[in-house]
Amino acid sequence: MKKEFAVIGLGRFGSSIVRELIDQGANVMAIDFKAERVDEFMHVATNAVVADTTDENVLKSIGIHEFEHVIVAIGEDIQASILTTLMLKELGVAKITVKAQNEYHEKVLRKIGADFVVHPERDMGIRIANNLMSNTVLDYLELSDEHSIMELRANDAIAGYSIIDLDIRAQYGINIIGIKRGTQILISPNPADKILRDDILLVIGADTDINRFVQRAMH
Amino acid sequence: MKKEFAVIGLGRFGSSIVRELIDQGANVMAIDFKAERVDEFMHVATNAVVADTTDENVLKSIGIHEFEHVIVAIGEDIQASILTTLMLKELGVAKITVKAQNEYHEKVLRKIGADFVVHPERDMGIRIANNLMSNTVLDYLELSDEHSIMELRANDAIAGYSIIDLDIRAQYGINIIGIKRGTQILISPNPADKILRDDILLVIGADTDINRFVQRAMH
Ligand SMILES: Nc1ncnc2c1ncn2[C@@H]1O[C@H](COP(=O)(O)OP(=O)(O)OP(=O)(O)O)[C@@H](O)[C@H]1O
Ligand SMILES: Nc1ncnc2c1ncn2[C@@H]1O[C@H](COP(=O)(O)OP(=O)(O)OP(=O)(O)O)[C@@H](O)[C@H]1O
Ligand SMILES: [Ca+2]
Ligand SMILES: [Ca+2]
Ligand SMILES: [Ca+2]
Ligand SMILES: [Ca+2]
Repeated sequence: MKKEFAVIGLGRFGSSIVRELIDQGANVMAIDFKAERVDEFMHVATNAVVADTTDENVLKSIGIHEFEHVIVAIGEDIQASILTTLMLKELGVAKITVKAQNEYHEKVLRKIGADFVVHPERDMGIRIANNLMSNTVLDYLELSDEHSIMELRANDAIAGYSIIDLDIRAQYGINIIGIKRGTQILISPNPADKILRDDILLVIGADTDINRFVQRAMH
Repeated sequence: MKKEFAVIGLGRFGSSIVRELIDQGANVMAIDFKAERVDEFMHVATNAVVADTTDENVLKSIGIHEFEHVIVAIGEDIQASILTTLMLKELGVAKITVKAQNEYHEKVLRKIGADFVVHPERDMGIRIANNLMSNTVLDYLELSDEHSIMELRANDAIAGYSIIDLDIRAQYGINIIGIKRGTQILISPNPADKILRDDILLVIGADTDINRFVQRAMH
């Protein structure tokens, strides 16, 4: 069973969603009111149509209510984004994801029934700032406000020691759940094996515990 | 020792970077040529200045070469982004991160010496598409092209079974490295304990192995 998506707005964000969904085998209708943007997707999306989605009759005529999930990737024109979302809701679309420009926009979208609201520029800004602040923490997955999985680059302070030597679990309450070594990923690292310089350690735990480990053991 | 950053361009992306860096205790100079954008950062950033960064003399006068790392978050005006990057490089800024609008822009930026090039809308589009495709995979950390850590929502197919019952390591070559249960995070789950419905399993492994687990065990 293929999933059925429609993506409205083929800017950088919407385009990227269309391409990735298609890559993963989904059926995707790509929609924009600029013909030149739609043309680019003629041979990429399942189908591509020129349509102004603030016009209810247009939305009906392209059968938008038949889609499981519609993504509104209109950014700059907040009014068009809100109007489109409102009409998708009225036409009975089951799931609606909308890109918001700011907090006010998000609040309105939630009131009128958007199921998911995303802030790509803001969220990516936060991710990049986290990377900028740290030469050690390379990437992370936030599990909750206080817990994460982090990728830490092993430096000279810990290279040559094993997980047992560093007594990581007992001292810090965190676990090393994997090691990236070059192109290899060791998903059950042997606690007795030595950590190498430039290994990337995958650790899970409370943010405070991981930070304590970075500050004490890796300095 | 505080890190020293300058962020040029206070749109959604640049603003978010400034706020998060400040939150994490960094010194940040916020720069834009629109006074109203700069005003917003008067009491947020370490300092905030109105400046057109395509003007070399202006860049010199604000002491841009003293910063460890400058982030160019000018988007739409590709020419201004390129010109700014070129001058930062000539003035001897050590690290330069630039937001690119498209592949062509990225190519030019790399040629003139940008250290990091980022595509926030594209990358966020890929993340969101991955979430859209899956009701099971909630979030993920890509470890390599072929390996990930994924958050999987436990459904009725596996609730009531333990990690031992499911024989996950032997059958699929993947590990459950943690369980999110309500607000709790179990970072060393007992393999004999039963998985509950709506537990979120944190699994590490090859993408193909994790997908195999999702398709066989969770259906
Ligand atoms: N009413 C509408 N109906 C259909 N498409 C629309 C409508 N209004 C805007 N769009 C399209 O939405 C797309 C995204 O709009 P936006 O103004 O956010 O562009 P962008 O800044 O290039 O987006 P991004 O930040 O994703 O790169 C544009 O291609 C635009 O033509
Ligand atoms: N030459 C320049 N010197 C200084 N600031 C500039 C220059 N050119 C553009 N900017 C500023 O860069 C900021 C980001 O520009 P952009 O056109 O990408 O805006 P945006 O679409 O709002 O960005 P975002 O996608 O991050 O929301 C704007 O606030 C703009 O005033
Ligand atoms: Ca947090
Ligand atoms: Ca924009
Ligand atoms: Ca944008
Ligand atoms: Ca991949």
